[in-house]
Amino acid sequence: MKFCSVCAHPVALSIPPDDNRPRFVCPQCGTIHYQNPKMVVGSIPVWEREGETRVLLCKRAIEPRHGFWTLPAGFMENDETTADAALRETHEEAGANIILHGLFSLLNVPHVHQVHMFYRATLLDLNYLAGPESLEVSTFSESQIPWDEIAFPTVARTLRFFFEDNKKVGRGEKYGFHAYDIDKSTKE
Amino acid sequence: MKFCSVCAHPVALSIPPDDNRPRFVCPQCGTIHYQNPKMVVGSIPVWEREGETRVLLCKRAIEPRHGFWTLPAGFMENDETTADAALRETHEEAGANIILHGLFSLLNVPHVHQVHMFYRATLLDLNYLAGPESLEVSTFSESQIPWDEIAFPTVARTLRFFFEDNKKVGRGEKYGFHAYDIDKSTKE
Repeated sequence: MKFCSVCAHPVALSIPPDDNRPRFVCPQCGTIHYQNPKMVVGSIPVWEREGETRVLLCKRAIEPRHGFWTLPAGFMENDETTADAALRETHEEAGANIILHGLFSLLNVPHVHQVHMFYRATLLDLNYLAGPESLEVSTFSESQIPWDEIAFPTVARTLRFFFEDNKKVGRGEKYGFHAYDIDKSTKE
Repeated sequence: MKFCSVCAHPVALSIPPDDNRPRFVCPQCGTIHYQNPKMVVGSIPVWEREGETRVLLCKRAIEPRHGFWTLPAGFMENDETTADAALRETHEEAGANIILHGLFSLLNVPHVHQVHMFYRATLLDLNYLAGPESLEVSTFSESQIPWDEIAFPTVARTLRFFFEDNKKVGRGEKYGFHAYDIDKSTKE
């Protein structure tokens, strides 16, 4: 940030009164330009038939991580809820018909100023269709997941949590809620 | 937003290629200025002694809702995790020594472009002290909570969820995780 978005004057880094960290402040109009983390929200679309559990993944048609696989997810928009965002992204990226269940994972990625959240979802049919941001959409059982080609550590971690819980659910337990912090060195 | 923060040229609302909603776009340098919801994160500092459960609240010394009571909470900053934010805000607003437990509630407030989150916490001692953003800090049992003077619906709702769960925990159950959507008409 170089210029004030309110008055176009060059901004300067300074610590405002009653604050304790440097902000971009406009010396002309006084506006303080706060910068805060963003939410990336998506779903885990699950297809369960005859004892087999499969999860829908999208092959990314965009950077970053073009060609790698991800759960459908994207930046939450103003005026929507986290559930709205998960449904919208799943529809946009995978054209998938889902029912959303509870929030399953929340993963902090502080070095890129993001918090990722994933909802469990039931995939209602296999009529999915890659949207403009996806090269391909497919469903994978745990053993079929391309673990070496997963786009982001938050997705790999959520998939690990999901398949662990899925086995427990098969033994009569419930799905949990999973919080996890990713740092620069986290591979998955 | 009137001017580009990268080059100071006036921005215009337009739908970028491969997008589906209007964004502030700079016609000079091409920067798309996305605007996304912010996270407000805090804690529920709990003091339990001799069968009584009390929760710490802060009386706000700042707008909005000056003079009303809130759980300690504030905007999450870049480079921190949600748990970091909850600890920092509790320390800044209440000078309180706490141990953080699991995420307890997540409340969408789409009409103000916010998501609020509260962690359960154990208050370690009663040596709290109002910070610059608080007029007063005190602990309240359920019957003492000033329900008509709670600053925000997300705080009232989280307190209701907390005391409901607290009774269940007394009967051997576990604390849950609570998601809730607030709209303009929600009083608490």
